Amino acid sequence: MKIAVVGAGLVGSAWAIVFARAGHDVAVFDAAAGGAARAATLIEARLRDLEAAGLVASAAEILPRISLAATLAEAVAGASYVQESVFETVEQKRLIFSALDAVLGPETLVGSSSSGIPASAFTEHVACRARCLIAHPVNPPYLIPVVELVPAPWTGPDVVPRVRALMEQVGQEPVALTREIEGFALNRLQGLLLAEAFRLVAEGIISVADLDRTVSAGLGLRWSFMGPFETIDLNAPGGVADYARRFRGMYETIAGARGVELGWDDGLIAEVERQRRAALPDSELAARSAWRDRRLMALMAHKKDESGKA
Amino acid sequence: MKIAVVGAGLVGSAWAIVFARAGHDVAVFDAAAGGAARAATLIEARLRDLEAAGLVASAAEILPRISLAATLAEAVAGASYVQESVFETVEQKRLIFSALDAVLGPETLVGSSSSGIPASAFTEHVACRARCLIAHPVNPPYLIPVVELVPAPWTGPDVVPRVRALMEQVGQEPVALTREIEGFALNRLQGLLLAEAFRLVAEGIISVADLDRTVSAGLGLRWSFMGPFETIDLNAPGGVADYARRFRGMYETIAGARGVELGWDDGLIAEVERQRRAALPDSELAARSAWRDRRLMALMAHKKDESGKA
Repeated sequence: MKIAVVGAGLVGSAWAIVFARAGHDVAVFDAAAGGAARAATLIEARLRDLEAAGLVASAAEILPRISLAATLAEAVAGASYVQESVFETVEQKRLIFSALDAVLGPETLVGSSSSGIPASAFTEHVACRARCLIAHPVNPPYLIPVVELVPAPWTGPDVVPRVRALMEQVGQEPVALTREIEGFALNRLQGLLLAEAFRLVAEGIISVADLDRTVSAGLGLRWSFMGPFETIDLNAPGGVADYARRFRGMYETIAGARGVELGWDDGLIAEVERQRRAALPDSELAARSAWRDRRLMALMAHKKDESGKA
Repeated sequence: MKIAVVGAGLVGSAWAIVFARAGHDVAVFDAAAGGAARAATLIEARLRDLEAAGLVASAAEILPRISLAATLAEAVAGASYVQESVFETVEQKRLIFSALDAVLGPETLVGSSSSGIPASAFTEHVACRARCLIAHPVNPPYLIPVVELVPAPWTGPDVVPRVRALMEQVGQEPVALTREIEGFALNRLQGLLLAEAFRLVAEGIISVADLDRTVSAGLGLRWSFMGPFETIDLNAPGGVADYARRFRGMYETIAGARGVELGWDDGLIAEVERQRRAALPDSELAARSAWRDRRLMALMAHKKDESGKA
């Protein structure tokens, strides 16, 4: 499969590694003078780092799959998918989508790396708009696998599933939003946690260093291998509904202290419980808790090793 | 040093391992019939797991440091520190602190494992109240090192620093709050993130599984070895103040969507910047970013190994 990477700064270069590592041919285009050549240097250095870390078998095998395209048309010709990563302003995004529209094959899908601007802000005017969506990575995507897929109102119904399948095939961990919201999901979660972190410092409750340690030596450990819902699902004998019954009062007070409605009504808790039990039946809760403890032990052994290094 | 563990359920048993692993003599007391004996069985099994995982050198060397006390008085006699972990109701906590008050040596400090009830709710009536505080672990503390230290209004000014030193000495990662707040810091952060997670599911924006993946394959990776402030400090070329300038607008919109004031005023951002630069001078930002990337690569290699296991 051919993939085009359009915009070859830090984010675009990292995407080229993701697709080439998975065996695809990648054509890289950057409109800036010397941009693609700078990307080639960066890509080679990062692939050597990955090889040294044991994360790719051979940088030398991957590199030849990445080529530099002289024009946008050359980059996207015959491509199944375009990953766009130009500078993030509405104007730049609108310009590149106009340019893409003029040269894109009739079947090619386009994902934008936009971290905050929704696709509706820069794809409304193009003929290919039904084939465009947000595919927002965390930098660098060759190390952090999550990709947020967010459709515009006019994105075709098959586009999110098709890009999701592609992202899974190349080893990423895509998540799908059903519609555009400010900050998508990842920055919403980060933003609400950060807002509380700043408030606790503002109120003189805790230092910046201790707040960081609360996460890096506490909350963040389980969250590095399971999400917040699974964490609480395994933190009460009867799963997430049981957890909500036990701790709803505390969380209502916490949310209330910041003027927020918690909103854990019975219907919502039942819905979360339904989705969790579909993923992990009651009968497997105990085995999964034992798995969590093994993962935690392995993680702490890993951290002990790492903290011994320079 | 002698440490007393009072209340020997899951939490108390785990604390016994923490203190004994660090070389201290630990006396365990549980008021329930057979409670201490059940704890002994649990402690031995967990120590074997830790030995198998390479997290302790020898379970057989640690076990003899843990003894079962027949009475509360026997457990605390000569102890420098008592870690209290009885069932978490105000009534149970008040009762055990009354009992401790009657038998405690004049220098002994007492930390309560309470996860939500502040120390002021159950220590006001005891003579030893100036030597009491919250020392809230995440379960199990022999794997998750953070301990939240929270003073009551009458806790002596040297008590948090002394318990902090003890916790560091036994290999935990203590964090100090300056005063009692509902949920302390850890559950505040978890609570605000969970509240947003539930809202996103309630609104049909994302599934429970994809929300979890947004954290476990995204946000949670860096947070497992550095906190949210350090994460954003390294996510803009000029550090956290630069980051706040670039992204304040997005986070204001995110907070505003939930009816919350972000409150990142210039004074607060300057204070966070001041604390971060004291921890990491400007001149070391680039080296620390390279360290972050090495840690991320090592973490992903670790996760790859683990996901290959059953």
